[in-house]
Amino acid sequence: MSLTQEFDTIAAISTPLGEGAISIVRLSGTDALKIAQSVFKGRNLTTVASHTINYGHIYEDKRLVDEVMVSVMRAPRTFTREDIVEINTHGGIAVTQEILQLLLRSGARLAEPGEFTKRAFLNGRMDLAQAESVMDLIRAKTDKAANIAVKQLEGSLSKMIQNIRQEILESLAQVEVNIDYPEYDDVETMTSQMLIEKTTRFEQLLENLLATAKRGKILREGLKTAIIGRPNVGKSSLLNQMLREEKAIVTDIAGTTRDVITEFANIGGVPLELIDTAGIRDTDDIVESIGVERSKKALAEADLVLLVLDASSALSPKDKELLELSASANRIILLNKTDLPEKIEIAELPADFIRISALKNENLDAVEDKINKIFFAGEIEAGDATVLSNARHIALVEQALAALKEANNGLMMGLPVDLIQVDVTRCWQLLGEITGEAAPDELITQLFSQFCLGK
Amino acid sequence: MSLTQEFDTIAAISTPLGEGAISIVRLSGTDALKIAQSVFKGRNLTTVASHTINYGHIYEDKRLVDEVMVSVMRAPRTFTREDIVEINTHGGIAVTQEILQLLLRSGARLAEPGEFTKRAFLNGRMDLAQAESVMDLIRAKTDKAANIAVKQLEGSLSKMIQNIRQEILESLAQVEVNIDYPEYDDVETMTSQMLIEKTTRFEQLLENLLATAKRGKILREGLKTAIIGRPNVGKSSLLNQMLREEKAIVTDIAGTTRDVITEFANIGGVPLELIDTAGIRDTDDIVESIGVERSKKALAEADLVLLVLDASSALSPKDKELLELSASANRIILLNKTDLPEKIEIAELPADFIRISALKNENLDAVEDKINKIFFAGEIEAGDATVLSNARHIALVEQALAALKEANNGLMMGLPVDLIQVDVTRCWQLLGEITGEAAPDELITQLFSQFCLGK
Repeated sequence: MSLTQEFDTIAAISTPLGEGAISIVRLSGTDALKIAQSVFKGRNLTTVASHTINYGHIYEDKRLVDEVMVSVMRAPRTFTREDIVEINTHGGIAVTQEILQLLLRSGARLAEPGEFTKRAFLNGRMDLAQAESVMDLIRAKTDKAANIAVKQLEGSLSKMIQNIRQEILESLAQVEVNIDYPEYDDVETMTSQMLIEKTTRFEQLLENLLATAKRGKILREGLKTAIIGRPNVGKSSLLNQMLREEKAIVTDIAGTTRDVITEFANIGGVPLELIDTAGIRDTDDIVESIGVERSKKALAEADLVLLVLDASSALSPKDKELLELSASANRIILLNKTDLPEKIEIAELPADFIRISALKNENLDAVEDKINKIFFAGEIEAGDATVLSNARHIALVEQALAALKEANNGLMMGLPVDLIQVDVTRCWQLLGEITGEAAPDELITQLFSQFCLGK
Repeated sequence: MSLTQEFDTIAAISTPLGEGAISIVRLSGTDALKIAQSVFKGRNLTTVASHTINYGHIYEDKRLVDEVMVSVMRAPRTFTREDIVEINTHGGIAVTQEILQLLLRSGARLAEPGEFTKRAFLNGRMDLAQAESVMDLIRAKTDKAANIAVKQLEGSLSKMIQNIRQEILESLAQVEVNIDYPEYDDVETMTSQMLIEKTTRFEQLLENLLATAKRGKILREGLKTAIIGRPNVGKSSLLNQMLREEKAIVTDIAGTTRDVITEFANIGGVPLELIDTAGIRDTDDIVESIGVERSKKALAEADLVLLVLDASSALSPKDKELLELSASANRIILLNKTDLPEKIEIAELPADFIRISALKNENLDAVEDKINKIFFAGEIEAGDATVLSNARHIALVEQALAALKEANNGLMMGLPVDLIQVDVTRCWQLLGEITGEAAPDELITQLFSQFCLGK
């Protein structure tokens, strides 16, 4: 266990802000127990056993603020490795904010976004990749995405990276020894051949890891998906059907509660971020020309296009226009309204379409399969493999791999082993940025600032 | 302590649904510990001490779902008086829903809205008025509103009602005895005069309680407030200034996340529910005629009207129209833009206006005072008095008071004491509906169904 650093005591609301049954105000730091006790009536929190839940009341002077349950967890067996107090209130925004304000007036400082997790990292409870996975877990839009995040939280990626770094370090040490003490017989001589064997193996490991990145990134970030089609083909029914899925998630983009709402549909574990759904909902109100303009705009930013055609009517010029517009995209053509007699000219369509009835929720599974085929070559399940999902990690692994390849090329070209050292060290350094062992302070500050408040 | 009834085990997400640092999935019932243990790896939850927090992991078969902290609270020292387990997850929507689904598959039933609190009520942990105050506390928009709710939660209203009911019951018993055993000398004879003294005192108590209702209701429900004024007088700056207040609350109307957002400003503890703020934000886009139409509509539903005039320019015909339109409302006239030279014709305005600068946040305190004067006769602070705030309670107290008055009238008219019994009993019955001692099952079911999920 690493030594716990001494920090001031921070406080924040740790549950989503809204009307709910329970809200939590969290304190962490040396004075957490003392500060909580100063506003609490009930058992003496500074002397109760660790990991206990204590019933009582929060008072501001003589005014009762709320009836609460207070969890006391003493360092070091806590998330931050510091003393933590969690005050569970009756929920509600006003009371929860009042209790937070009271704690701030009683000596706590308002926590910065991610500051609890930052302390967990700085106090050695987790490395940087694990800390990042905490946020991924919170932001996960589907169970599959959550699954990747929780594995990273448990350290699967960290362990793999640490093992490679450890081996690289040992190889580097041997190179050093060979250079400095060529006369030592008991140290295995690090010949080019042996180094090539090692770097080739590392290369393979990193290649395998990178091979998971596409899937990981899509599951983490979702596919920007445009639903296009002329009016009345059933876009809106399809949208509602997709969002009616038990696990569809409607979420606010951070900080802009009032304006932008992003809707995610969960299609077989893949989060589809639906673009311009307002446009779809307003279909009846807008003239057709706007429809096509909007489709063009949506197409430009989409990873996936769902083109909806009405199977119960003949292809219209507008349909043909949209077919052409979307030809080069990752497109799935949906023939909707199969509950009605089919009139659409199948012969004029690209071969690859799916018949559905959005109204009757029929054959939407086929869409799922198709998405799986397009983006995951049919292999969406990762099994127990460690998956790379975070863009920062992916970029670092790519750079580390490039450095390794340079080293390998140099070795092939017969450059002396000690000249290769630079590239191998660079690889080691880059991988260390993933786990944070070699990450600059500014990076750490910047990463945690993207966390949500109270985490 | 009343005997705890046996119920099945229920589960629900008890934190607001959204991205947050911590989410809680709560279980209550006989099998709560067993069900939680069946998906948990860590200490054995069925044997750990009560009121402890236990670190571990949630698994679905062999798949890790999340790293969690599990609180175990054994009956009867819990909110529901049943065994309660609270699983604190890493937050996030997908994982939290997954854990809930897992518990439901493992034997728990999805809790109905308010079912935890309903059990607290049915198991005698709190009466109906207290249970209702739990929801008021959650929905409270300001500290003052929360303050009223938490006092009711602690039983201030319940105790007062119980005391009155108890005294009524004793009086009724004496009346009965006098009727049935007129020969008993040791029972104080309940003469009309003595009954009048009692009912008059109860009348006074209920009158006093009702006197708090207007304030209580406003603080609980807020004042519907319309900000009107012609374009460019600064409505939008005023709105933003009011919402920028530290404690302003933006909340979703239950169930309609996507459409209606209600904004509450906290003005000196009074929640102002701002009407048609979209109209204000869109001011630049709409033609003036719509502005007046909108104002008329907003005026029709408003409890309070803030009419904004531009002090730096002469009164326009539109200003005069709005002055006239709002003349009969609870109106506050605001002369905005006092940071610029004043050009408005003060002589033409009603005497009672307030000069402000929304831009520079100047003199908005005066608006607060004015609201206090209009709605609370300057006495917004309730001190330690028990405040009636819930419309249901207010209606019942009014009816109970009417029954008491009938009894009193009858007594004054010389009706025999035993005929008065009916009205006094009715009063006793009506007050019992507040605390739930005499509330019909349908009422109880209906009340709890308005609660939020997980409470």
